[in-house]
Formats: sequence, structure tokens, C-alpha cells
Amino acid sequence: MKVRRSNRVIDMTRYLLERPHTLVPLTYFSEKFSSAKSSISEDLTIIRNTFARQGTGILETVPGAAGGVRFIPTVEAQAAQDFLTDMSERISESDRLLPGGYVYLSDLLGTPEVLRQVGKLIAAQYAKKSVDVVMTIATKGIPIAQSVAYYLNKPFVIVRRDSKITEGSTVSVNYVSGSSNRIEKMELSKRSLKQDANVLIVDDFMKGGGTISGMCSMVKEFDANLAGIAVFGEGNFEGKRNIPTYTSLIRVEQIDTDNNQILAVPGNYVAQTDFIQLQPKA
Amino acid sequence: MKVRRSNRVIDMTRYLLERPHTLVPLTYFSEKFSSAKSSISEDLTIIRNTFARQGTGILETVPGAAGGVRFIPTVEAQAAQDFLTDMSERISESDRLLPGGYVYLSDLLGTPEVLRQVGKLIAAQYAKKSVDVVMTIATKGIPIAQSVAYYLNKPFVIVRRDSKITEGSTVSVNYVSGSSNRIEKMELSKRSLKQDANVLIVDDFMKGGGTISGMCSMVKEFDANLAGIAVFGEGNFEGKRNIPTYTSLIRVEQIDTDNNQILAVPGNYVAQTDFIQLQPKA
Repeated sequence: MKVRRSNRVIDMTRYLLERPHTLVPLTYFSEKFSSAKSSISEDLTIIRNTFARQGTGILETVPGAAGGVRFIPTVEAQAAQDFLTDMSERISESDRLLPGGYVYLSDLLGTPEVLRQVGKLIAAQYAKKSVDVVMTIATKGIPIAQSVAYYLNKPFVIVRRDSKITEGSTVSVNYVSGSSNRIEKMELSKRSLKQDANVLIVDDFMKGGGTISGMCSMVKEFDANLAGIAVFGEGNFEGKRNIPTYTSLIRVEQIDTDNNQILAVPGNYVAQTDFIQLQPKA
Repeated sequence: MKVRRSNRVIDMTRYLLERPHTLVPLTYFSEKFSSAKSSISEDLTIIRNTFARQGTGILETVPGAAGGVRFIPTVEAQAAQDFLTDMSERISESDRLLPGGYVYLSDLLGTPEVLRQVGKLIAAQYAKKSVDVVMTIATKGIPIAQSVAYYLNKPFVIVRRDSKITEGSTVSVNYVSGSSNRIEKMELSKRSLKQDANVLIVDDFMKGGGTISGMCSMVKEFDANLAGIAVFGEGNFEGKRNIPTYTSLIRVEQIDTDNNQILAVPGNYVAQTDFIQLQPKA
């Protein structure tokens, strides 16, 4: 009997972790394990408390006939702070400095462990908010969008600077590219976004915010709603960015090409986040 | 004591699932839970058997002082078959047909649940093989590469058709683009791939194989080794593709633009895969 409970909670844990933000009816588990609903309820209480103690997330119970249980990943303030401090240090490594004062980030944004944390952090800000779709722009925003989408369990859509025949009809908007100060064009497949959808915009790096501003126009063009904006890194920008409130994980404070030095610090993430306190029941 | 074991196996399950292909020393768990190694060993046996019974994967024990336990995700033949049949049906929906005989796939390849399965399936083929890095080409291969990289817990690198200043020095190769039959150029950041690395090439869709063939040249150019090739979809191609053995999840058998019909079927995945039989111990 001891082993049976252990077997159940192991498989239930796996099942729930693979389906964040998804309501799972208790009958699913009771049928799968041929167990009484009361046993499943006890199992879920144990999982809930373990998740709370380890900072894994909330196991939310929805009562009633159409009810069930839903796993919502969260992040603890200290864990977020530790990750962002570590990232800042890694980004401050001098060999990341590229000609023109650019910072090489492709290795970090191609590492599953980093992307898992980035996705969890951004998704955790929307644990209690409604997001229907994550939007980004090709190319380097894609891994961020996919990671955030993973933890919100929502689709992501990719805006493109070049039109592709494999996208079908597109909607295009013009935007001012900060780096070149030129008017450029971005496009999104018409069928990829629904009216009134709540859209979370993410990108890898923001300087003047022109690209982000363009994606905000895109959201409007589809009669959708902006749920929020999050970037992995932001640069030091003197002027005022023409965009709503945003979250950044990292801020590149200073780039000194003469002395080959980068100074990166945690962005405004911790200040911008309402961390959820998880409470295990006694 | 019963609850303590349940708490431990829940958190150990989460920890292992988040770190596929990573050796975790038993001391990590015994210290985290202030438990004897013998209890941790018993916990791991229960997890191993549950994973085996549910088709989750292998929990491999590495004995000795530098040993520990390693989770290797696998896929069962029937589950793979079911997923591929379902995908084929969804891709055969007539409203996916675009002008020029292209098939719209961006919704599927932007859905976390689909990407999880695609990643698991491709990664499972390499459960017992050495892969150091996953390679793809921008834009639509990226979500596939990221999902496969997630389950192999290895980095992925993105080859680009356009050069970007944020990549630093690059290596470029020429390739014949099948669709236009033109010579084109692809580039990869010099620092993103090491000599002798075992490279798994993935992409979203293959027609004549020109792009894949270009990536194979890229692997050679870096003095790295080709570990394998996998694509989400392949088209019906009359000629002989100039590439080594590959795996496809889906094959688009026929496109009838006159009658607005697409026929997609499972690709060669099941035939190409040595499925691992998981054996729970009594």
C-alpha cells in the first residue's frame, strides 16, 4: 500500500508538471490508478504541500463537477535573485564583447537550463493573469517565447521581418528600428492571432524599444490586448522609450569597448514581480 | 514516515525530470532530505519502476564513488505511433493548404504540447547515443531544435541565412536551395560549435534536402561529426536527396491544389527507431 501511494504520486507529479495551467479532473487520476477519489485527494494534498515547501508552484483545486486540479509554476524571490545575479556575472565576461559594442548571448539563449529558468521567471509573473498567446519576433526572441509558452502552456507566434510564402496571408506594420533609425516592416500570419486575445510580448534584447513598440502596434492591428512585455536583456538607453511598462531580467549597464569590459546587472524583474508565497498546510 | 517517503519521491521526480541525461549523485538527495543513502536508494527504485511502468523513461544507476542516477527520457512505440497518426490527420486538414502548394504548420509548431512530443520522439532516438549539440537553421527549425535540446539537455545552435552583427565572426557555406535551385549562403557563429562535437541536425520541413545538405557541410567545415538528421515533415520528392539517412515524423504524401486536399501520413520515424523496452523490477 505504501508503494502504491508512492507510485501514484510519482506519476501524478510527472503528469501535472508536463501540463502547467491545465485543469485535470480528479476522475482522470482515479480511473488511471483504479483508486478511490478520496485516495487521489490525499495524494494531491501531499503533492501540493511538497510543491509548496520546495517552491515548485501552486497546486490549485477547483471544486465541483467540472473541477479538478491545476498546477501553476511559480518562482521564489530568492531563487530569482540568485539566478539573475549569476546571469549578470556570466554576461559581464569580457569575451562576450563583439565589435560595435554588441554582447554575445547566443550560447546562453541556446542552453536548455538557462531557458528553463528564463521561461519560469517570466511565466511566474503571469501565474494569476490571463495570457492567451506569447508573441515574439524572429530570430533570437523565439527560444524565450517558447520557454515562456512552455510554462504558461499557451501557443506562441513569431513575427517576421521577412515575408515567407509558408505563412499565408499576413498583416504588416511599420516600425522604427532603433539601431538604424530606419522605417522597417514586420509581418505576422493573419491566422496566427485572434481578436481580443491577451498577448504577452517577449524578446531577447531591447535597446531603444523600437521593435517592441512595433509588436505593440501589431497587437493593436489584430484588435488584441497587450497582457505585458518582458525582455531577457535591456541596454542602457538615454532617451525615453515609447512603450508601456516592461520587465527585464538583465540590464547591460555599461559597455567599455576601449577596456574590453561589460557590466551587466539584474534588471527590474524582482521589483516588478508580485511573488506568490506558497503555504504548505500542516 | 509514509508521508516523508512520498514527499521525497515527489521532489526527486521533479528534480530528475527537469534534468534529463544529467548524472545526479545520491549524496545530493541524501543531503537535501537528510536521509540515509539506503532510503534514497529505495526511493529511486520506486521511481525507476514507476517510470518503467508508465513509459516515462530509464532511470539509470551509475555505481561507484563518482556515480549517481540519470534520467533518460524514452518513448513507447505505441505512443509514438498514436501521436504521429494524430499529427498526420491534423496536417491533412484542407485549410492548411496555402497558395503554391505549401502547408501551414506554424500553429502546430507553436504549440507547447506538440513541441513536447516532437522533442521527446526525436530525443528518444538518441537515448543511448552521444549528442553534444543540436543544430538547426532559422526560423522555423528553432522550436524543434529547442524541444529536442530540452530532452537531451544539450545546447542548440542556430545557422542563419542572414549575417547578424550580434553573432561575432561566422563560418559560411554555400548550398543549393531546392525551392529556387539557386546557390545561397548560410552562416554559423564561429564560437558556437567545437571541433569533434557530435551534431544532431533538425529542421521543420525537408523537400529536396538542400538546406539539410548545407548544414551537413557546415558540420564538416567545423571538423565536427554528424550524429544524425531529423525533420518534422518531409515532402514527396521524386529525385534522390544528397544527404545521409534521416528520420521524418510526418510525410506529406500528396498535395492536390485543384481539389484543395492534403494527404499527410506518418514518416519513417517508427521504422527508424530502436524502441527501448522498459523493464520494471518485481
